[in-house]
Amino acid sequence: MNNYRLTIQYDGNRYKGWQRLGGGENTIQGRIEQVISEMAGQPVTIIGASRTDAGVHALGQVANVKLQDDVAEVKLRNVLNHRLPADISILSVERVPEDFHARFDAKAKTYLYKIWNEGHSHPFMRRYSMHVKKKLDLEAMRRAGEHFLGEHDFTAYSNAKAHKKKTVRTVYDLTIEEAHGMIDIRVRGNGFLYNMVRKIVGTLIEVGIGNKDPDEIPDIIASKDRARTGLLADAYGLYLEKIEYDE
Amino acid sequence: MNNYRLTIQYDGNRYKGWQRLGGGENTIQGRIEQVISEMAGQPVTIIGASRTDAGVHALGQVANVKLQDDVAEVKLRNVLNHRLPADISILSVERVPEDFHARFDAKAKTYLYKIWNEGHSHPFMRRYSMHVKKKLDLEAMRRAGEHFLGEHDFTAYSNAKAHKKKTVRTVYDLTIEEAHGMIDIRVRGNGFLYNMVRKIVGTLIEVGIGNKDPDEIPDIIASKDRARTGLLADAYGLYLEKIEYDE
Repeated sequence: MNNYRLTIQYDGNRYKGWQRLGGGENTIQGRIEQVISEMAGQPVTIIGASRTDAGVHALGQVANVKLQDDVAEVKLRNVLNHRLPADISILSVERVPEDFHARFDAKAKTYLYKIWNEGHSHPFMRRYSMHVKKKLDLEAMRRAGEHFLGEHDFTAYSNAKAHKKKTVRTVYDLTIEEAHGMIDIRVRGNGFLYNMVRKIVGTLIEVGIGNKDPDEIPDIIASKDRARTGLLADAYGLYLEKIEYDE
Repeated sequence: MNNYRLTIQYDGNRYKGWQRLGGGENTIQGRIEQVISEMAGQPVTIIGASRTDAGVHALGQVANVKLQDDVAEVKLRNVLNHRLPADISILSVERVPEDFHARFDAKAKTYLYKIWNEGHSHPFMRRYSMHVKKKLDLEAMRRAGEHFLGEHDFTAYSNAKAHKKKTVRTVYDLTIEEAHGMIDIRVRGNGFLYNMVRKIVGTLIEVGIGNKDPDEIPDIIASKDRARTGLLADAYGLYLEKIEYDE
């Protein structure tokens, strides 16, 4: 079998997330599989590194797909970009070893969250960032962010619908930068539970507006109590930025 | 009368352009006038520096409005930003002399045109730039751009619907820059005829793909023949960037 790695960018606004669902919903996976299946003349399944939620964007989602036929990388990329809607773009197609698995082999994932922190709206970023009008205290948010670093049981920062058995994850980095009113929060870790990044960002926003103290966070994490995490940040401010693999 | 200058940003995609029309169409001017009229308790007219066309965006449109009542600038701005949709944003409100006129007093206008020049689509800029897949020859486009500089009768670069008596305009600057696949064309002049910037950009694109020679342009301008200008670039790639006044 020929195995291909795709790097994919998408605007999540129109989609019910990455993962194909049963009822023919509009999903990124479903759209890409449809094009490749038509090209291959048989049903094809693609494996995505991250199952981004409804409304979430990607700057660098990674997926792999196995094909019976030996198709040139450039041809696969061109067919996909020609037939996919303009809000999904295939940045690259590379041939990879047959045992490459986009999800199991991922070593680190980086998510970016964008917050527009001015009193007035941002006409061009209104679908691509969460608008918080109250001025956020970035120093308090950075102190809060440090408490998420390292290995923790993130049950409190997961969604009850997830039913994951393993709730321990390691956060490697969390950075907060601001430029011209736009705040970029980047979280890099070995993996994230369903809604985990949006709940972490929600807590950081509550710290930033003064509703939570940075030093409450270790307690909230230790409690494993989902009710204590509070705000879930909007999906349309979140981007899957990068997936890292051993090369 | 109290006279106020507004600096306005908008995403033009949902609108029939700046100028209020007779039939209750969705226009930027109409939306802003509606909010100010409700606040003032009487019909109010605002004067915009540029009548941007349907679908065209603004980073820094300027308008002025005269009010009977003395309203604090911050209050006017807050009421507008609170009541306007998120795709129109009031960046600033300043008190100006009673004789300030946003259109007549404008000394220079700058338009920005964005072209996405990669084979694949740009999911986040698909409504905010024109997608040209064929690699453009920027050096040829820059040579072509020089022919537009200075004072010319731009009849060939106007739209027949405009019926402007005065068709002479001066272009002060035309620059073309590229970064990571996005080409920014900036045109600064003392004024522009209806569709003039989009027609200039259309000609530059034709030069960039090799369909027109840069040195044909003086002839096209001199011909005053609208049929010779060819391509009209898409509205959604165009931004009114800046209006300059004597301060």
